[in-house]
Amino acid sequence: MTAPDYGKAFALWRDQAPEWADYTQHAFVEGLRTGTLPRADFLHYLRQDYIFLIHFTRAWALAATKGATLAEIQAAAATVQALAHYEMPLHVQICADAGIDKTTLETTEEAPANLAYTRYVLESGYSGDFLDLLAALAPCVLGYGEIGARLKGSGGPYAGWIDTYAGQDYQKLCHDVGALIDNALVYRLGQDWASLPRARHLSQRFATATRLEVGFWQMGLNGA
Amino acid sequence: MTAPDYGKAFALWRDQAPEWADYTQHAFVEGLRTGTLPRADFLHYLRQDYIFLIHFTRAWALAATKGATLAEIQAAAATVQALAHYEMPLHVQICADAGIDKTTLETTEEAPANLAYTRYVLESGYSGDFLDLLAALAPCVLGYGEIGARLKGSGGPYAGWIDTYAGQDYQKLCHDVGALIDNALVYRLGQDWASLPRARHLSQRFATATRLEVGFWQMGLNGA
Amino acid sequence: MTAPDYGKAFALWRDQAPEWADYTQHAFVEGLRTGTLPRADFLHYLRQDYIFLIHFTRAWALAATKGATLAEIQAAAATVQALAHYEMPLHVQICADAGIDKTTLETTEEAPANLAYTRYVLESGYSGDFLDLLAALAPCVLGYGEIGARLKGSGGPYAGWIDTYAGQDYQKLCHDVGALIDNALVYRLGQDWASLPRARHLSQRFATATRLEVGFWQMGLNGA
Amino acid sequence: MTAPDYGKAFALWRDQAPEWADYTQHAFVEGLRTGTLPRADFLHYLRQDYIFLIHFTRAWALAATKGATLAEIQAAAATVQALAHYEMPLHVQICADAGIDKTTLETTEEAPANLAYTRYVLESGYSGDFLDLLAALAPCVLGYGEIGARLKGSGGPYAGWIDTYAGQDYQKLCHDVGALIDNALVYRLGQDWASLPRARHLSQRFATATRLEVGFWQMGLNGA
Repeated sequence: MTAPDYGKAFALWRDQAPEWADYTQHAFVEGLRTGTLPRADFLHYLRQDYIFLIHFTRAWALAATKGATLAEIQAAAATVQALAHYEMPLHVQICADAGIDKTTLETTEEAPANLAYTRYVLESGYSGDFLDLLAALAPCVLGYGEIGARLKGSGGPYAGWIDTYAGQDYQKLCHDVGALIDNALVYRLGQDWASLPRARHLSQRFATATRLEVGFWQMGLNGA
Repeated sequence: MTAPDYGKAFALWRDQAPEWADYTQHAFVEGLRTGTLPRADFLHYLRQDYIFLIHFTRAWALAATKGATLAEIQAAAATVQALAHYEMPLHVQICADAGIDKTTLETTEEAPANLAYTRYVLESGYSGDFLDLLAALAPCVLGYGEIGARLKGSGGPYAGWIDTYAGQDYQKLCHDVGALIDNALVYRLGQDWASLPRARHLSQRFATATRLEVGFWQMGLNGA
Repeated sequence: MTAPDYGKAFALWRDQAPEWADYTQHAFVEGLRTGTLPRADFLHYLRQDYIFLIHFTRAWALAATKGATLAEIQAAAATVQALAHYEMPLHVQICADAGIDKTTLETTEEAPANLAYTRYVLESGYSGDFLDLLAALAPCVLGYGEIGARLKGSGGPYAGWIDTYAGQDYQKLCHDVGALIDNALVYRLGQDWASLPRARHLSQRFATATRLEVGFWQMGLNGA
Repeated sequence: MTAPDYGKAFALWRDQAPEWADYTQHAFVEGLRTGTLPRADFLHYLRQDYIFLIHFTRAWALAATKGATLAEIQAAAATVQALAHYEMPLHVQICADAGIDKTTLETTEEAPANLAYTRYVLESGYSGDFLDLLAALAPCVLGYGEIGARLKGSGGPYAGWIDTYAGQDYQKLCHDVGALIDNALVYRLGQDWASLPRARHLSQRFATATRLEVGFWQMGLNGA
């Protein structure tokens, strides 16, 4: 599939991430598309994703802390707000509809694949700068956008999940985040940022986070 | 003046901060109350406060990153949102009304008193935990609430500024932040937290931030 | 086996970590003891442990940053120095003796179990305070001490590895780190710290880090 | 005076820092050179410098945490070790010789100029990356080197202080830190780093830290 146009950095990093296809076309994703994903696997994924979203919200808040301009801070803050006060309650509702109550969510033990991914992202942000954090956040935000775009209209039992990421709101978010990244790169490194060693380091962060996304889907399938 | 009831921690820390009265009854504040504060001093303060608000927003975002429960994360995120997408634009508008355009704001050199205060708060958060950060954030949020409550109805050229902090919205925010702090203390340290060494360390953070607030007003008066 | 006496916190946290025995008596450890661990597994472990040690050194440096007293800073700094200028060169030498050159070490891809553990520890430190960081660091430092003490005198092909951790120097380090933790707890939370909710949270960090240690050994056996 | 050769970044940043001469030729420094600095001012400075050194050690430890290569981590760790286990005890001894005992040092209230400088450096490191931290650390390390080189052989009551920074050990440290910075820049940004927007941002950090050094000397003279 052609990559969605989420900007220059995404196009570059996506090409350089060896496991991008393993992530965006993972058996878990194909199961969502064809509707053959066992319900138990989906529920296991949802429970872990609740924990994931909490740490992901924290990571976007860290991006707001690390922004260098008011525009960067505001963009990150808007994402935090969307995650904390819209996505999280929505997720809790989806889980409730699926028979997973809030106590179950809150007492779910975090799987190693979840720990690996979320802590890698947060630590990238703490130890690095705004760019390091965005490079580690990008595979999740933009990969789900690409998956949503590809699975659009698949229907089946997971149509609700698919529509969320295929929908206009989420696709707009992907374009905004792509632009945030591209602007942040130019602001710090100039127009020719792609030729700098820094570009390679950031690409490696994106690739590592992509690798950890593969592990996250796999955890969904393995039930652990 | 009797302290407003912003909770148990505030009452305790306020009592233990030697410079609380120097801060909340500073000559700058009295000038706002009586209307005798020179306009130039107020404008100087507004320009520095623009920079302050950026770092204060970043610090609340850090609180969202450091929260231990979804409720803590959501509370901090709501404050970030209010600061980034309501307070900041409002502040820019107030400055514009006062003849300070956005370029002037963005090119203002940060005064040492501003650097000292904002970086102290942020570093408290980074080096410490959620409680350290809240203790350093509290004197600004709650002190402005106390000042607003005391100056309420003073009228004069600074009535707009006074009304913002005396108003119901801001007073509600103070009660919410006070409750956030009290709950965070109990969640981590139990009901008898006030007897622990930790309580003394947090009180010292509150006192240091209060001292830096005095320096901030003084910078307003000194024009540097 | 009776636990070594590395202090009060260790005794408590060790008892409350469900997977402590899974960690300290893991099949990998038993293979070291009996000498039946395949050489290839040991070499795989050594390569990953090189990466681990880099991040572990970084985490102890973060402890020096987060210490509240000169004594805490100095204790953490001494550990950083030992790791960066003694352990790391020693590890490089051990690997060289085993036929793994420096380039191989530096180009080893970090396994997910390694990412999970090291980033969990670092993020505990960044998001929490000095105590959170120590609780996440403790299972590695003190668990290796307990393993060394238990395997002492086993001989066999892994006697060199065993002797390092069974030796007086390392055992002294464990006592020092145990005392650092106990003192840090009392300094912040008072003598009765074990009764506070905070103690439970710290114990959970210790337990999670222990769980990730199990994953690390398992990675050694799985070769991935 | 010609600048000492501490590398390319230092030469550039020094030229671009408007207050470099105000810092390195401050009245406090001239008083050290001519011996006319009042003893009370020097003692006041020493007391504040004790607190400064603690935070400076913490900041170098953060550099070890944020290093991207083993060489960077080791270089920062060596500086931490020198500060924590050599400079700090030496400073305590110098203060003792001057009649300031350890309790006095530990109970000294941190002056606002001290808070501003140390927290600015630490926050630069936490919010930015390794380069941001080094740019904020450089004015102190390298400025004292330049002052030492210029004041060398001045004699008088402050000859001991001067000799420390004029001496071969300290001058070597300055060359090493200058090389660490230059290498870190090339490693991340390539040979032409000076043409990137990032170079301007880093230069601004160096300039702000230089401005805060001026405030630190001034605090010495003002006794507050």
